[in-house]
Amino acid sequence: MPKHQSAGASGSTLLGIEERRARTGGGSTAVDRWLTRKILTESGDPPLVIELWDGTRFEPAHASGAAPEPVARVEIRDRRTLYGLLVNTDVAFGDAVSADRIRIHGDLVTFLETIYRSTDDAVPRDSWKRRFKAWLNRPRRNTRAGSQSNIHHHYDLGNDFYRLWLDEEMVYTCAYYPHENATLEEAQRAKMDHVCRKLELRPGQWAVEAGCGWGSLAIHMGREYGVHVRAFNISHEQILYARERAAALGLEGQVEFVEADYRTVEGEYDVFVSVGMLEHVGVDNYRTLGEVAARSLKPDGRGLIHSIGRNAPAPNNPWIERRIFPGSYPPSLAEMSTIFEPQELSVLDVENLRLHYARTCRAWLDRFDAAVDRVEAMYDSDFVRAWRLYLSGSVAAFTTGSLQLFQVVFAPGTSNAVPMTREHMYPRN
Amino acid sequence: MPKHQSAGASGSTLLGIEERRARTGGGSTAVDRWLTRKILTESGDPPLVIELWDGTRFEPAHASGAAPEPVARVEIRDRRTLYGLLVNTDVAFGDAVSADRIRIHGDLVTFLETIYRSTDDAVPRDSWKRRFKAWLNRPRRNTRAGSQSNIHHHYDLGNDFYRLWLDEEMVYTCAYYPHENATLEEAQRAKMDHVCRKLELRPGQWAVEAGCGWGSLAIHMGREYGVHVRAFNISHEQILYARERAAALGLEGQVEFVEADYRTVEGEYDVFVSVGMLEHVGVDNYRTLGEVAARSLKPDGRGLIHSIGRNAPAPNNPWIERRIFPGSYPPSLAEMSTIFEPQELSVLDVENLRLHYARTCRAWLDRFDAAVDRVEAMYDSDFVRAWRLYLSGSVAAFTTGSLQLFQVVFAPGTSNAVPMTREHMYPRN
Repeated sequence: MPKHQSAGASGSTLLGIEERRARTGGGSTAVDRWLTRKILTESGDPPLVIELWDGTRFEPAHASGAAPEPVARVEIRDRRTLYGLLVNTDVAFGDAVSADRIRIHGDLVTFLETIYRSTDDAVPRDSWKRRFKAWLNRPRRNTRAGSQSNIHHHYDLGNDFYRLWLDEEMVYTCAYYPHENATLEEAQRAKMDHVCRKLELRPGQWAVEAGCGWGSLAIHMGREYGVHVRAFNISHEQILYARERAAALGLEGQVEFVEADYRTVEGEYDVFVSVGMLEHVGVDNYRTLGEVAARSLKPDGRGLIHSIGRNAPAPNNPWIERRIFPGSYPPSLAEMSTIFEPQELSVLDVENLRLHYARTCRAWLDRFDAAVDRVEAMYDSDFVRAWRLYLSGSVAAFTTGSLQLFQVVFAPGTSNAVPMTREHMYPRN
Repeated sequence: MPKHQSAGASGSTLLGIEERRARTGGGSTAVDRWLTRKILTESGDPPLVIELWDGTRFEPAHASGAAPEPVARVEIRDRRTLYGLLVNTDVAFGDAVSADRIRIHGDLVTFLETIYRSTDDAVPRDSWKRRFKAWLNRPRRNTRAGSQSNIHHHYDLGNDFYRLWLDEEMVYTCAYYPHENATLEEAQRAKMDHVCRKLELRPGQWAVEAGCGWGSLAIHMGREYGVHVRAFNISHEQILYARERAAALGLEGQVEFVEADYRTVEGEYDVFVSVGMLEHVGVDNYRTLGEVAARSLKPDGRGLIHSIGRNAPAPNNPWIERRIFPGSYPPSLAEMSTIFEPQELSVLDVENLRLHYARTCRAWLDRFDAAVDRVEAMYDSDFVRAWRLYLSGSVAAFTTGSLQLFQVVFAPGTSNAVPMTREHMYPRN
């Protein structure tokens, strides 16, 4: 197990530290250094260099003496920030990075992956280590009220902002990379086709979509598969955008965008589809969502729900909950089953696309970084740092397996209009 | 809603009934007829003719007057049998059919499908209707002790018996029909290849199999994919058969059959596979099974569990539990998730092969019927009737959606050695 040595504790560097103390206002104390070592130990001694505001450094070292190569240097720039990590780790870390009071020198994704992996061993439920991991466990906590304001917070930041780093069709959910060299644009189209094939869409059928984002899937289903679509969303900005796009494509009669909650869906459809909404529904509402899906499907209908998930239930991340993505929660498959089982809906197919979401988030992060000057001009540098942390943390969460992406196909339990095999999902090129 | 009319209540048939009364010893009373009507009503008034021991008939009729075509005639041959249905429906119905005290005139599968469908509407949990449906809900209840004797009861009936109606490789689990015209033999080989492709077997790798039946999959993995296999089973007769077959094929050094419980599995493997064992494990032991799977897998290993299941948890059938298949239970996906979630195993893929099991059971039933004289010579006519009921009930359960068949692929939660897509499961021909 690697141990951290405090370089600051050795006499030879003390002079340099004294100089810095004068600049930063207050040198680190023995208590500060003890707390830093404790944080490192409880984090599983990740291969990091920690540097305090006075230059005191904690470098990784094996007990055997062979020090692992550090993956990043974490600069904690004042005492208040250090103490904040102990009191309210989850929110404090994210806020400190956003406010530039903690700086990560080195690749942010690699740093976050390292933290995920070092804290991956079993640890007591209430330890600092687990709380720190909980911080990393992406956004999305369940809230019972206020879907409208939660969704507004994130999705109504402005279409111009998302246009800077999403694909041209504004798809803000996991893409599907059919081959190694696919671009984000190709992968988002491939995802929509993958979903449509799973649903076995046929021209003239009726589909209802719960949570339609900027309308890309609804438009794709209408334009490419000849389906009538009624698509629901409570984000005003997204609905306006989707309607404009449908009108420009001459699809007004075929693809309808409804600014309303999924719970208001009425009528019977051949297909019920929901891609990337479940994260915002909250486990307490899964039974209701299942009721909506069950009552919306004709006896021989098919459904698909696509959601971020987890291998096991875990607490969510209060920082992302507060600052980035209010009201969201990624469920485990057992939690998701409360959508299906009370309605005796039959689960036909589950596919885990975790590594596709890691690639998708990486593509978004790269585009975000390329557009960072324009983002900063639209907002400010705190916003940029917060979103870089959120996108980088998402890459790391999917790469390390902290988050999953589940696509679930289902049908009414009494329907025999279900495919014998999944060959149709993999057409010969 | 169809109503049943008692033909016996009309004056014109009473004379014929009187004659029969003399032959069968005691005519039906007003109470008998009231109870029969009650049973029909509580069963959702299925389109059946019920005939009592004295010839009294209950025929289906719509309230509107348009009678549905009856799918079968159910002959209840004495009063004791009718009353037995009221007191202990679950066991009494199966026992009465086995003992020829209830005769089903017409296609047994169609009769059972009709019962499934007519009782499919929501009914009170403790109603007669639900109890009757519970009877139909195939075998397999969870018992905590006595795996050895439970497994012995069913699987050690004699290899000669199973050879009469299984395929040539003695595969007693759901087959996979890649096309409409596949034979049972082809479909069982296709199932084994489907499982092997899902597991991405490579020559020289090590696989452990929990619950190997007569050894067909273990031998297939060794012979066709060059894998070393260690296969566990607690059925003495099956292990002897499997060893003989491996020896005859010159695979002794490569495919090892161990007569032991899955909980004794030791070592690390590339692959953990279990096809058709979970039904016998019992929900209380799923966590233990998950521990065994997790500790058996190398960090980049893959696992597959194949099991009969349900869309939602339901009580099991005491008749099959007592007479056919002790100690078994088909779980819902939420129940199955207790294998995976406590170990943070990552579910990669779930496929529901329900309609394949309907076809498989139908193929078994057809072969059983073709060999019925030999079965009766080995056992007796009660045994034949019991097994016809069990196999027919299985066809009906899968056709009507009362039972499902889940194949779940999983991997350690931290492994990135997982495939990006499922294309490899569907090779180009």
